[in-house]
Amino acid sequence: MRVLAIDPGLTRCGIGVVDTASNSVITLVSVGVLKSSAELSIEIRLKEIDRQIREWIREHRPDVIAIERVFSQHNLKTVMGTAQVAGIALLAAAQSDTKVVMHTPSEVKAAVTGSGRADKKQVATMVVKLLGLKETPKPVDSTDALALAICHHWRGMGNARIAAAVKKESARVNKGKKVKK
Amino acid sequence: MRVLAIDPGLTRCGIGVVDTASNSVITLVSVGVLKSSAELSIEIRLKEIDRQIREWIREHRPDVIAIERVFSQHNLKTVMGTAQVAGIALLAAAQSDTKVVMHTPSEVKAAVTGSGRADKKQVATMVVKLLGLKETPKPVDSTDALALAICHHWRGMGNARIAAAVKKESARVNKGKKVKK
Repeated sequence: MRVLAIDPGLTRCGIGVVDTASNSVITLVSVGVLKSSAELSIEIRLKEIDRQIREWIREHRPDVIAIERVFSQHNLKTVMGTAQVAGIALLAAAQSDTKVVMHTPSEVKAAVTGSGRADKKQVATMVVKLLGLKETPKPVDSTDALALAICHHWRGMGNARIAAAVKKESARVNKGKKVKK
Repeated sequence: MRVLAIDPGLTRCGIGVVDTASNSVITLVSVGVLKSSAELSIEIRLKEIDRQIREWIREHRPDVIAIERVFSQHNLKTVMGTAQVAGIALLAAAQSDTKVVMHTPSEVKAAVTGSGRADKKQVATMVVKLLGLKETPKPVDSTDALALAICHHWRGMGNARIAAAVKKESARVNKGKKVKK
């Protein structure tokens, strides 16, 4: 399964693609940062980021697009730009007919480091280990996108496991009911 | 000049079009509210609103698109959805190669009522008067969009007047300088 992850941002928007094999090995496909100049007007910046997001989707044809959920409590100064980029990322994903999922920053941190309050460096360190990279991708915004992609894969596995367990339990209970009859 | 104004919102997005003649008469062309069901996922809601915004732009071919500026301080619960809709509205405007302007809610209120703190009802009352309508367009979200369009027209006139005054003053000063020589 191929996951394309987007960590929305107006000045730097992290983007990463990973492939996950049936044996749970996660492989880095591509990683980067979409930029837009602060000297341009907001609508032109969004147009430029939109163009780049659509290029990545076209080139990598992901099965799922994961987008980091933005909260209004954080970084009041930049949150509106971040939310606007999240909006155009959601739109591009929907228009490409790709499945969209969102994860919160805490979910991402917890997935890759075990702590929802881990700092960027810790997240980057774990991303390097989990993908078996030789060095840390720069800048940090790109490792956040990769962490989001890994988080999605693992949460998906977790959900699949839970779904399988529920199915198993349900089958067991139903079997028991039948026996009682 | 034709102004298409958008008052971003995820559940109800106000939209209105007005024409302004050289004699300062402002005429209502069309007004409405774009809706998306809260039962749908966010990316599908944005896709639906995007489709409707683009339809309005195509149909009315405005000279300017005015979008209300969203602030992070207000309505923390809905602000992220509002910002995402503002993002896709800005993108649609930029991709239609139409000039984009933003005005704050206080600027809009001050423009049509004289007070930056006027309530929705007061704004609606003035919109009806200024456009010479027989009744108030419903729902209120649509009058907010019309107020934004009127605000843009008047601020544009104001700016033009100021620019003209600056030019006149500058010419006077320069003439004065020349006389001194």
